[in-house]
Amino acid sequence: MVMPEEFHELARAVNNWGRWGPADERGTLNLLTPEAVRAGAALARHGRLFPLALPLSANGPQTGMVPGRLNPLRTMLSVNEPLTGDPADVSFSDDIVVMGLQAATHWDALAHATYAGRLYNGFPASTVTAAGAARCGADKIGAVAGRGVLLDVARVRGVDRLPGGHAITADDLDAAADLAGTTVAPGDILLVRTGHIQLLHAGDRTGYTYPSPGMSLGTVRWLRARDVAAVAIDTLTFEVFPCERPDLLLPVHLLHLVEMGLLQGQNFDLEALAADCGADGEYTFLLTATPEPFTGALGAPVAPTAVK
Amino acid sequence: MVMPEEFHELARAVNNWGRWGPADERGTLNLLTPEAVRAGAALARHGRLFPLALPLSANGPQTGMVPGRLNPLRTMLSVNEPLTGDPADVSFSDDIVVMGLQAATHWDALAHATYAGRLYNGFPASTVTAAGAARCGADKIGAVAGRGVLLDVARVRGVDRLPGGHAITADDLDAAADLAGTTVAPGDILLVRTGHIQLLHAGDRTGYTYPSPGMSLGTVRWLRARDVAAVAIDTLTFEVFPCERPDLLLPVHLLHLVEMGLLQGQNFDLEALAADCGADGEYTFLLTATPEPFTGALGAPVAPTAVK
Amino acid sequence: MVMPEEFHELARAVNNWGRWGPADERGTLNLLTPEAVRAGAALARHGRLFPLALPLSANGPQTGMVPGRLNPLRTMLSVNEPLTGDPADVSFSDDIVVMGLQAATHWDALAHATYAGRLYNGFPASTVTAAGAARCGADKIGAVAGRGVLLDVARVRGVDRLPGGHAITADDLDAAADLAGTTVAPGDILLVRTGHIQLLHAGDRTGYTYPSPGMSLGTVRWLRARDVAAVAIDTLTFEVFPCERPDLLLPVHLLHLVEMGLLQGQNFDLEALAADCGADGEYTFLLTATPEPFTGALGAPVAPTAVK
Amino acid sequence: MVMPEEFHELARAVNNWGRWGPADERGTLNLLTPEAVRAGAALARHGRLFPLALPLSANGPQTGMVPGRLNPLRTMLSVNEPLTGDPADVSFSDDIVVMGLQAATHWDALAHATYAGRLYNGFPASTVTAAGAARCGADKIGAVAGRGVLLDVARVRGVDRLPGGHAITADDLDAAADLAGTTVAPGDILLVRTGHIQLLHAGDRTGYTYPSPGMSLGTVRWLRARDVAAVAIDTLTFEVFPCERPDLLLPVHLLHLVEMGLLQGQNFDLEALAADCGADGEYTFLLTATPEPFTGALGAPVAPTAVK
Repeated sequence: MVMPEEFHELARAVNNWGRWGPADERGTLNLLTPEAVRAGAALARHGRLFPLALPLSANGPQTGMVPGRLNPLRTMLSVNEPLTGDPADVSFSDDIVVMGLQAATHWDALAHATYAGRLYNGFPASTVTAAGAARCGADKIGAVAGRGVLLDVARVRGVDRLPGGHAITADDLDAAADLAGTTVAPGDILLVRTGHIQLLHAGDRTGYTYPSPGMSLGTVRWLRARDVAAVAIDTLTFEVFPCERPDLLLPVHLLHLVEMGLLQGQNFDLEALAADCGADGEYTFLLTATPEPFTGALGAPVAPTAVK
Repeated sequence: MVMPEEFHELARAVNNWGRWGPADERGTLNLLTPEAVRAGAALARHGRLFPLALPLSANGPQTGMVPGRLNPLRTMLSVNEPLTGDPADVSFSDDIVVMGLQAATHWDALAHATYAGRLYNGFPASTVTAAGAARCGADKIGAVAGRGVLLDVARVRGVDRLPGGHAITADDLDAAADLAGTTVAPGDILLVRTGHIQLLHAGDRTGYTYPSPGMSLGTVRWLRARDVAAVAIDTLTFEVFPCERPDLLLPVHLLHLVEMGLLQGQNFDLEALAADCGADGEYTFLLTATPEPFTGALGAPVAPTAVK
Repeated sequence: MVMPEEFHELARAVNNWGRWGPADERGTLNLLTPEAVRAGAALARHGRLFPLALPLSANGPQTGMVPGRLNPLRTMLSVNEPLTGDPADVSFSDDIVVMGLQAATHWDALAHATYAGRLYNGFPASTVTAAGAARCGADKIGAVAGRGVLLDVARVRGVDRLPGGHAITADDLDAAADLAGTTVAPGDILLVRTGHIQLLHAGDRTGYTYPSPGMSLGTVRWLRARDVAAVAIDTLTFEVFPCERPDLLLPVHLLHLVEMGLLQGQNFDLEALAADCGADGEYTFLLTATPEPFTGALGAPVAPTAVK
Repeated sequence: MVMPEEFHELARAVNNWGRWGPADERGTLNLLTPEAVRAGAALARHGRLFPLALPLSANGPQTGMVPGRLNPLRTMLSVNEPLTGDPADVSFSDDIVVMGLQAATHWDALAHATYAGRLYNGFPASTVTAAGAARCGADKIGAVAGRGVLLDVARVRGVDRLPGGHAITADDLDAAADLAGTTVAPGDILLVRTGHIQLLHAGDRTGYTYPSPGMSLGTVRWLRARDVAAVAIDTLTFEVFPCERPDLLLPVHLLHLVEMGLLQGQNFDLEALAADCGADGEYTFLLTATPEPFTGALGAPVAPTAVK
């Protein structure tokens, strides 16, 4: 498939290779400076906590569309097993899980996507092997915390949830930033709300999967211009799906992960947080979202927490 | 096995059943009030981040002592799989994991331990089944963030790491709080450092497992009196192991999880944080430690983040 | 749910508890006497082999109807990993699998089903725990080999495959035995062909699941009267599904597994064998079908082999 | 590592590439002709069955030497779960397993080993990917049944078990064939007994792993000259371990799997069968050993059954 020249132009415009040195594996997380973290911490004023991860269970969002990306299947190793053999005594229960690392709320590792034989910062795609990602794996993400900004696109569009297939534009983001009463700044962590996750809560996994609203090609320069550290969304596919053009498959993944080295997150449940922001008009907060540091992983579960 | 009367006395003294209502499943996390969270947030002044989770890989701390508690085994679903079939095009890599939920850095769910047929708040042990914990599972923990206090017992004892078998006393905790220049307050989240995890970093998994320094019976009243919200440590067994008395197996687990409903965490890697605290003399900080919300789980991985 | 008296009558009529002693865990496999095995071996005259197991892959028959019964998901531990580090040298590839033990071609363990608190031979249902089946698990099955008889019900009914919902009757079995030109004898292993597995081969997993032809209540006495050692079929549910009566859920499972201790197998692919039997008119053969001896398992994969 | 010329000579001498056509993926299993199968079936005269697979449980032979090759870990999906919600009613128990495909009794797929960029029949090593073996995977093995010959090397050596490190020679095999009173013929399936598995039965997993008796370079021509269809043994490593020469790592694997396309099996438990053969002097029998047909797998569990 020949990608259109306009994609390559955009790729060059937003590219961050070499910006943080030839060995860099963290991309835009370099923008999470102490100042950016402090700016976030200063917003934790009320002591209210909002956990943003989906429950992890066999009822998760996966439908089999990505083969093998199992919803978490948790089984018991032991149930009230008494250490002495006497059930009246001290007893323990223990469990294991098997799951796709991108099954539920997660950050993509930068190595998750490649094209033309390259991943972020020019590392060869061949650094991803059966052993995992030697470069830009989830273990390279490290601690994530900073100023979170809720961009409630559904609300500024006047709907509970954006319709499936809605391609979020730069204008949508501008309008949502206006609603938030803030200017998006370098090192910010954006949480883009579509409301689409309501379908999942209602049990409609298929509708949640497809068609989905999401980020469009038109937002990539916008994000790059503002130098955000990370972007997360309340959908499965992150970008609008089906894709905007038949000759460009999941192009936002390529531009974010490969060209920009921009951390992107999926299946963030923003409903309770958005209700709170709508109520008090404060759309910025401290966000901490350090992923589980799976060595060499292509993505990693995260239990993000907004602190207002 | 008949437990000594002195255990039962202690159990009664620290018991929290009913304190937050008969339906409560969160125990001491009720002490994480907005005030407690704000007190923590106010300590995030420098913008420095410390991730406290161990890397998740097959080289984790498990040795087989707890049968089936697998170190994380991550395998690939796909390696640079091109969506169009052409490897020059957009390609993705994806992976799954199988692991014990308590294999590495984790919080115990309150339902993890039972005795005399009961778990925290008097719920019957029979609420734990092959389907998991219907009561007091890891999914009930919710968001965790507040004032973190590093109690560096190794440092106050003048050693790099406490010897295996060292039973941490209330005096140890007092001395460490003095070093921290703080008074432990309701809703605090304590991070107790033994330095024992250095053995794991050095590749000595067996030594890390046994013998281990850890919390003793003598600290339980101390923690209850101060009404801490949670306690985590840098060892595998949490409490001193081998146990203090042959007639009491893992009694601290029972007192914390069953009687107090106290969240306890294991395998927190405190080395880098402790070095920083030693250097600047600031032992308090914002700690966020929301676990992965596995439904019905008996424990859950967490990627704790200290923000100074 | 109150089961009808007519079920209990049938249960009493076919019950085998105590027949092979109070400690017996193998049920009708006791009928696989040396004579029965020899009768089977004598039929291996042409040297033609028919493997009867479905391929084991993520494209297996499971649709999620039984939660957690995963189709086999096989992933790589290593791909051409050179022992010396030099890819020109001796290199190995290795893999793991996670799967439901009853995901594909399998025998049910007798402990798979219980009712009224009992499993086969009166063992209490409570012998099945989070640790598995202490009694009548798949590890108790042992070696299985004997005279196989193909009962091609589809062929005697003059169809390629029986329609979904067809309840196989005793008359069907008689007609199929007539076609086979044999009298079903004690210790025989019956392979009942419906042709339903053609739906699976055609990619219709949902149709394969439901509705399904299968064994009816009317065949249970027939099997008991002939003292067969085991029965396998080419469907997912074994018995007709939906069930014959709304007040009896999967009654054939109860009668076979609990009352008779009759080994029953599912998802046996009989298509190639049936074509051969139709061609040469020989419907009897040596069948070997020793399951994988999973300790305490509730079912076990088997790779049955017919030798004509 | 440069392999010695003498290895290459041997490789050329035993090579079977092209012998069964350029597309062949079954190697010596082509020698399992109808005649060979019939010769086996004729030996099933007494109706005695010997299952040769190890129990599949977490107590299996794996020690972690091959990273990730997990012993079978079986956990419960449900325990006596009543379909109607009433525990007196029909209830089911179900389970899953995660395991290394070569964890216990198994056949190696021919694709398991490669060198110099090639696997059996000259297929490129690159046909093994994260998706598994496109060529010569375990799913290509198909049905395995034929004349089994027990070569009881321990018995002819006058010991209960061969010492660790004993390299089985061609003379050993000749002596064992003499004891068996048979001439090894094309299409035979050899079961070579060392007795080493007694260590595993005694709980000594480490001793079972290393040092191990096993096949030596000196037996490869012997096997090729007799055109056996398959060889299995009662050890973990198949060939003698540590290896005979420091400059040749696991050379028998390369000669068998890559050069000859010879099916080889490990961890076959031959103790009960050997006792029976010793008692009645009959060392030949029908052996059926069809593996579980995992698509693209590098090895596959098998529950072999000897019928005497």
